[in-house]
Amino acid sequence: MITLWHCRDARSFRPLWALEELGLPYELKLLPFPPRFHARDYLDENPLGTIPLLVDGETRMTESSAMIEYLSMRHGNGALSVRPDEAGYGAYLNGLLYGEATLTFPQTLVLRYTRLEPEDRRNPQVAGDYARWFLARLRGLDARLETAPFVAGERFTGADISVAYALLLAETLDLSEQFSPAVTAYWARMRDRPAFARAKAAQAGTDRDVKA
Amino acid sequence: MITLWHCRDARSFRPLWALEELGLPYELKLLPFPPRFHARDYLDENPLGTIPLLVDGETRMTESSAMIEYLSMRHGNGALSVRPDEAGYGAYLNGLLYGEATLTFPQTLVLRYTRLEPEDRRNPQVAGDYARWFLARLRGLDARLETAPFVAGERFTGADISVAYALLLAETLDLSEQFSPAVTAYWARMRDRPAFARAKAAQAGTDRDVKA
Repeated sequence: MITLWHCRDARSFRPLWALEELGLPYELKLLPFPPRFHARDYLDENPLGTIPLLVDGETRMTESSAMIEYLSMRHGNGALSVRPDEAGYGAYLNGLLYGEATLTFPQTLVLRYTRLEPEDRRNPQVAGDYARWFLARLRGLDARLETAPFVAGERFTGADISVAYALLLAETLDLSEQFSPAVTAYWARMRDRPAFARAKAAQAGTDRDVKA
Repeated sequence: MITLWHCRDARSFRPLWALEELGLPYELKLLPFPPRFHARDYLDENPLGTIPLLVDGETRMTESSAMIEYLSMRHGNGALSVRPDEAGYGAYLNGLLYGEATLTFPQTLVLRYTRLEPEDRRNPQVAGDYARWFLARLRGLDARLETAPFVAGERFTGADISVAYALLLAETLDLSEQFSPAVTAYWARMRDRPAFARAKAAQAGTDRDVKA
């Protein structure tokens, strides 16, 4: 059985969405955010205290975009992957990384220095620096969407899950009003996928298990 | 022919090192850092202005850790990869992402707010926050090295290139003095690889092409 430790709408939404796209069985452990303060016993599972954690037998993973490819290739017959002999292989691998390292991390600076830190440690300069950084890098997605409906290849893949999660985070940070029309339309298409809705329902359905 | 746009010791050192490990022919275009200010015509190649850029026929990539897997699987018979049916597959994918998203990005905050920004925009609080963040997350590598000499599987892989680049960056930021003994020893082993030395020589050898 695959077990996923998750905080609502955190990066762990990526593997949760991938599990739903692939139709795989899993156990979801929902934690309050941030777990290293609100669920101390989670540190026994993951000493870093970070979310997500995915455990599958001997395999333990902490990187959400890596989990997408792992689930697809190990358990999903590659259904969310572009293979090395396909034309979109480079774009696929690039999209997996771009969604996280280029589009998500900068937004965590905005989150931290406008909302999570105590008032006296908040920092509008740094939050502004990385809001602009995110929006500038998002032009790479915009350029891609001029010629294709998905991040890689001719179909929905794990690269779309990686990138679309960054757009979900942008919406919670009120950055989505600055999306281009092409990115806004893409985000609406991603959000409309049945597996996206099932992932949202799965995290809502375990509300009763949250230790607040 | 594979073409790689590179700044000395920037993230593009990852694909440069991978190219040398795999023994592949390539053209190296060395640029001054940051190219969006010092090499404006680079924006014609990569409108985002970011380094690296790798071009291989129709394939154009901008994410350094994705390039390692691309080069290995498309051109190197998977010599730097762990395959889906191997025990270390999850650790391999995790290491590719962890080296960049978890270990490298936080250090770019340290670089930016202690060195790159003008004096009046520097920020020791934020630089300190992310130096600590990096060192805390590095404990994940330390734990792995207690039981294994490499990041994934039983051999050197692209996950080591992804992670070791973060250690190279840490050295330039004077964070390496805080490495544990296990991480210090790992970093010395990685630096001693002949392909690492060839990558260093390749970037030095093109010095005459830098437009400063």
